[in-house]
Amino acid sequence: MKQSIGPQGKLSVYDRVPVAPEHAVMMAKALFQRAGAPADVANEIAEHLVEADQCGVESHGIVRTLQYTREFMDGTLDASARPEVMRHEGGRRSVQARGGIGIPAMRIAHEIAAEAALENGLSAVGVLGAGHTGRLGAFGEIAARRGCLSIALGGGNRKRWRMVAPYGGREALLPTNPFCIAMPGGDRGPVVIDIATSQAAGGWIYAARAAGVDLPEGLIVDRNGAPSCNPEDYFNGGAILPKGGPLGYGLALIAELVGEAMLGPVLKGEINWLVLALDCRRYQEAPAMHAVAEEILAEIRASAPADGRERVEVPGEREREQCAAAQGKPLWVPGKIWAAIEEMARDLNAVPE
Amino acid sequence: MKQSIGPQGKLSVYDRVPVAPEHAVMMAKALFQRAGAPADVANEIAEHLVEADQCGVESHGIVRTLQYTREFMDGTLDASARPEVMRHEGGRRSVQARGGIGIPAMRIAHEIAAEAALENGLSAVGVLGAGHTGRLGAFGEIAARRGCLSIALGGGNRKRWRMVAPYGGREALLPTNPFCIAMPGGDRGPVVIDIATSQAAGGWIYAARAAGVDLPEGLIVDRNGAPSCNPEDYFNGGAILPKGGPLGYGLALIAELVGEAMLGPVLKGEINWLVLALDCRRYQEAPAMHAVAEEILAEIRASAPADGRERVEVPGEREREQCAAAQGKPLWVPGKIWAAIEEMARDLNAVPE
Repeated sequence: MKQSIGPQGKLSVYDRVPVAPEHAVMMAKALFQRAGAPADVANEIAEHLVEADQCGVESHGIVRTLQYTREFMDGTLDASARPEVMRHEGGRRSVQARGGIGIPAMRIAHEIAAEAALENGLSAVGVLGAGHTGRLGAFGEIAARRGCLSIALGGGNRKRWRMVAPYGGREALLPTNPFCIAMPGGDRGPVVIDIATSQAAGGWIYAARAAGVDLPEGLIVDRNGAPSCNPEDYFNGGAILPKGGPLGYGLALIAELVGEAMLGPVLKGEINWLVLALDCRRYQEAPAMHAVAEEILAEIRASAPADGRERVEVPGEREREQCAAAQGKPLWVPGKIWAAIEEMARDLNAVPE
Repeated sequence: MKQSIGPQGKLSVYDRVPVAPEHAVMMAKALFQRAGAPADVANEIAEHLVEADQCGVESHGIVRTLQYTREFMDGTLDASARPEVMRHEGGRRSVQARGGIGIPAMRIAHEIAAEAALENGLSAVGVLGAGHTGRLGAFGEIAARRGCLSIALGGGNRKRWRMVAPYGGREALLPTNPFCIAMPGGDRGPVVIDIATSQAAGGWIYAARAAGVDLPEGLIVDRNGAPSCNPEDYFNGGAILPKGGPLGYGLALIAELVGEAMLGPVLKGEINWLVLALDCRRYQEAPAMHAVAEEILAEIRASAPADGRERVEVPGEREREQCAAAQGKPLWVPGKIWAAIEEMARDLNAVPE
């Protein structure tokens, strides 16, 4: 029987090697700098990726060093771009990523959205022309830690990323348009929803094909709309299904309208983003809100898990727990991926400082 | 084989009778007035219910006349309540429904949220102490027709409505906390997402039990967390599943935190609501936005449907089409339901004007 791979799985088909987090940051930073990124931008991206690995979100971890470096080198992304905060008529603000990687732009957008919400009650910030935005949860957490409810939705580039069928359809039409929604929680920190509107992010389909394994049921359909577990069927005219049928489809469609019809077109980068923030403290004192939130979340944590599960999770807590537990320990990077990073560094003569 | 009933189905087990829409409005209005509602409030609720039937959303149609009248009569809801717009420190606004039915409160909240968004770029309005809010799509459409992106999320009353298991769990902990997201669309009007975060609204489980039929697969689990199609299993300690697993669960949990920890507690009514509105025209001129939106939506409409479907739908369009087609025609109301409404009117001596 073929091994199955998917959003719940791990790339266990690879051997792993231990890498000190500091060393991983230096390697990635050296590669990004060699590819033209300013030192501070290169450092921010590298630290973001290593933190994603420490949070257990390997799909958005150090493996992305290869993709980002290639995109900088081949001109897909502008390595030298620095995000710029624009003030428009009527007080509206946006962050122009200028075709650079999206990580600093999204961090800045959430910072200024939270700042403006604390000042005015609520705020909206567009993020335009951003490449890959890394692990979204990291940004939602920034706004939530400042006391805000934040909602980030990204879309607008289906002409480049036709991956997901609409609910009731079979053709790949929409991108996987992800959402990040975060707000202050209880004793264990913010609640952070970081999720694609599709049954699987595209990376999992590529990973399954690369590893020669099947996908779990219910993720994709083939070109005839028939359910399939074979990743090749996706590449041969199939489609990923929306998560939760009309729910994921509806959210993806709104994000597509926001990203292209309202904020777009997407001229550079991957998709456009809208970041909304609301100051929760205008509605409730922080300690009172914290107490009630903790009561709700404690109920969730204490409830009986489904078969095959150890516990019921509060979104965002697993990542923080894993990140805390990972401090002072090596990353365990798939051996093939680390070898590819080292090889790329040799080829580009990228020397960690 | 038992007949299956569910969100996609119709209550075809009942015979139906034709009722002129104007007569249905008068009957419902007379009942609500007899139960203590002011004439204008009674009229607004009655028209809302009949329109829901005309839109094809029978679960939120004239059948609710029975529930609302009973809730007014037994004091669950305050029939005489009129929603009041409150202005708080810092310009924040809320609509206090005062334990009355939620339909006028949600209409007003979307109207003032849109008005404030057109003035300031964006706005947030809380809706507190509201009973059942009817068909949410009707309210999103109000804000979208004025050029706004609107997001309404409701929750905060799980202690009364423990119905849905968290993702990875098996115990009914959360309400079905619904969302309504709407924004301007193309030639056929706004895109309107009106959806529960659970696999099924509670009403469907009750309807299936009442009709003695099975539920479709994937909606509920029994008290042991095992999948079930028997509605009795829900009432015997089972739970509805979240829609899209972590997606529906995440949205429901955020809504619960917003509804109770931020806006709550829910002192009267069913749940508390947050309505956000953003003026899309600050980002893009309306004609340009309309043109791109129509391009996106036309692609969706033209795409190949899945097996067993006639077409791929744009959320909100079916309701508007059905409503337009229903004008000047009778409602076809399940005979038992209309008989119950007539009986209730006789019992209460509620005479349509």
